[in-house]
Amino acid sequence: MARQLVECVPNFSEGRRKEVIEALVRPFRETKGCYLFDFRADEDHNRLVVSLAGEPAAICDAVLAASATAVERIDLNAHRGAHPRMGAVDVIPFTPIAGITMEECVTLARTFGERFHKTLHVPVYYYEEAALRPDRTRLEVIRKGQYEGLKEEITRPERHPDLGEPKLHPTAGATVIGARKFLVAFNVNLNTTNVEIAKTIAKRVRASGGGFTAVKGIGLALEEKGLVQVSMNIVDYDQTALYRVLEFIRMEAARWGVTVNGTEVYGMIPTRAILDSAAYYLQIDDFDPGQVLELKLLELMREEERS
Amino acid sequence: MARQLVECVPNFSEGRRKEVIEALVRPFRETKGCYLFDFRADEDHNRLVVSLAGEPAAICDAVLAASATAVERIDLNAHRGAHPRMGAVDVIPFTPIAGITMEECVTLARTFGERFHKTLHVPVYYYEEAALRPDRTRLEVIRKGQYEGLKEEITRPERHPDLGEPKLHPTAGATVIGARKFLVAFNVNLNTTNVEIAKTIAKRVRASGGGFTAVKGIGLALEEKGLVQVSMNIVDYDQTALYRVLEFIRMEAARWGVTVNGTEVYGMIPTRAILDSAAYYLQIDDFDPGQVLELKLLELMREEERS
Repeated sequence: MARQLVECVPNFSEGRRKEVIEALVRPFRETKGCYLFDFRADEDHNRLVVSLAGEPAAICDAVLAASATAVERIDLNAHRGAHPRMGAVDVIPFTPIAGITMEECVTLARTFGERFHKTLHVPVYYYEEAALRPDRTRLEVIRKGQYEGLKEEITRPERHPDLGEPKLHPTAGATVIGARKFLVAFNVNLNTTNVEIAKTIAKRVRASGGGFTAVKGIGLALEEKGLVQVSMNIVDYDQTALYRVLEFIRMEAARWGVTVNGTEVYGMIPTRAILDSAAYYLQIDDFDPGQVLELKLLELMREEERS
Repeated sequence: MARQLVECVPNFSEGRRKEVIEALVRPFRETKGCYLFDFRADEDHNRLVVSLAGEPAAICDAVLAASATAVERIDLNAHRGAHPRMGAVDVIPFTPIAGITMEECVTLARTFGERFHKTLHVPVYYYEEAALRPDRTRLEVIRKGQYEGLKEEITRPERHPDLGEPKLHPTAGATVIGARKFLVAFNVNLNTTNVEIAKTIAKRVRASGGGFTAVKGIGLALEEKGLVQVSMNIVDYDQTALYRVLEFIRMEAARWGVTVNGTEVYGMIPTRAILDSAAYYLQIDDFDPGQVLELKLLELMREEERS
C-alpha cells in the first residue's frame, strides 16, 4: 500500500509573542515526515495559522507537541484579538491529499482527538466531516459565544463537548478537531470602486444565495487599489472548478459594464484544482492527471516507500 | 543539498518481441530511486520508448543495465521498422526536472556516455545541449543515413563518433546521448477536413516558418475523426507557453472560418507547463509555483532526503 498523505492547518491563539510562535512552529520543522508549507502569525487576529502536509502519524505527533506548548503558554483569559476563538489550540482540520479517503481522515481526526484529550485534558468538539452530531458540522456554530461565552454555555447539554467533562480547560478553553476537503481561497478583483457590485455578485455566486454549492464568498472594497473584490472560499474544487466561478463572475459583472481586473489564489492550491481549469481553457480532450509529471512522481514515490 | 531529479527517455530499437521488451523494461521497474512513468512499444516503428524520472545515479544504473540487454539481444542487421535508427540503443536524452541545472545535466550525459562506451564498446555521439560540435546539435543530422548508411560514412572524419573508433558496433550500431529541455507534445485539432489548412498553420506556428522559436510542428489529417491536426513539439515550454500557441492557431484558423475542435497533450507534462496557461486564462496575479501543493511537497521531500 502506498504512503498516505494528509494536509493539516492547525490554528493557535497566539499571533504576537515571537518566542511562543517560534516554540509552536518548532515541532513542525523538526518532525521527520511532517512538511511545513507555511505559517502566518497575525497580530490583529492574535492568531497563528500553520499549513502542513505529510504522513498521518508524523502530522499527529507534531500537532500534539505544538498543542502541548500552546496549552502551556497561552492563557485565553488574557487573550484579545479580532478573530473568533475558543481555545489555545482553536481548530485542527485534517484534509486528505493522497492515498487516503475522507472516511479514513474522519477516523484519523477522531483517533487524534482522543489522544489529544487524554494527553492535554482539553475538551474536544468534532466538526465538518468528523462531526458526531449534524448541528456540529459548522465551526461557527460550535464556537458561538467564543471562550468567554462558552464558559457558561458548556454546562448546557446541547453544548457539552464530544470528549471531556462539560467544563472548559481553565486557560486553554476547548478545541475543535475535524476532517474536511481542501479549501481553495480564490479572489476576483473587479474594475470598479462600487463595492455594492462586489457584494451583489458575491451573493449570487455563493451557495447561500443560490449560486454554486461549494462556494462561500463576500464582497469588499480594495481601497488602495481602487478596485472591489469578490473574496471566496471554494470548499470542494472537484465540484466547482475555478474557471466556472470566474466566468460566472465575469458574466454577472458585464451587466454593469464592469470587467475582471485580475484574480488571486491565496495560500496553497492542489494541482488538480488547476488542471480542471487549464484543460477547459486549453480545450484538452481526455486529460489524465497521471500525465502530470510531479503528480505521477509523487504517486510512484509513495508506492516505493511502502513496497 | 536537495536530492536531484532528472527525466530520461531512452529509445531502444525493439518494438515487437515481447520477451525482449520485458527484459529491457525490467531494470526500470527494479532499480530503487528510478521511477518508470510509461513505456510504449510500437510494432510499425519497431521501437521502444521508455519514460523515466528519478535520481541521476539510479537512472544511469538502470539505463546502463537495459542498454546491456539491448546490445546483447538486438541485431540491427536484421532490424526493420518505420522509424529512423542507428543503434540498438538509439538515443538517450537526460532532462533536468528539479535541483539540477542544464549544465549539470550535460555533465551527467557526458559522464554516462563514457561509462556506456567503456562497458558496452558501442560508439557514442553527443547531441543537443551535450553536443561537442555545433553541427551535432540535431539528432537527425547525426543519424543521417541510419545504421546502414553510417556503416560506410562513419569512416569519414566529419562523421567520426565522439567516443570510440570510427566503426559501428557490428550488431548494435552507435548511440546518441545528450541533454535537452523537457519536450511537450501538444496537438491542436481543427474543425475541417482540409489538410492544407493544418499544413499552412503548422508552417506559420513553427520556428522554421518564422513562428515561435520553441515550436516544431507538422499538419496532418485525422481521417477517422474528419478533422485535421497541427501536431507539435514544444521544446522549451518556459519560452513558449501552450496558451500562446493555441491562441495563435485559433487566430490563424479564423481566416478560413475554421475553429479549434480540441487539443491533446501526449505523454507527460510538467506542472509548470500548465501553470503558465492556467494563470493566463484565470487572470491570476503573481502566481507562485510554490503555492502548488504537490510542487512544494516534492521540494520539501527532496530537501529532507539529503538533510
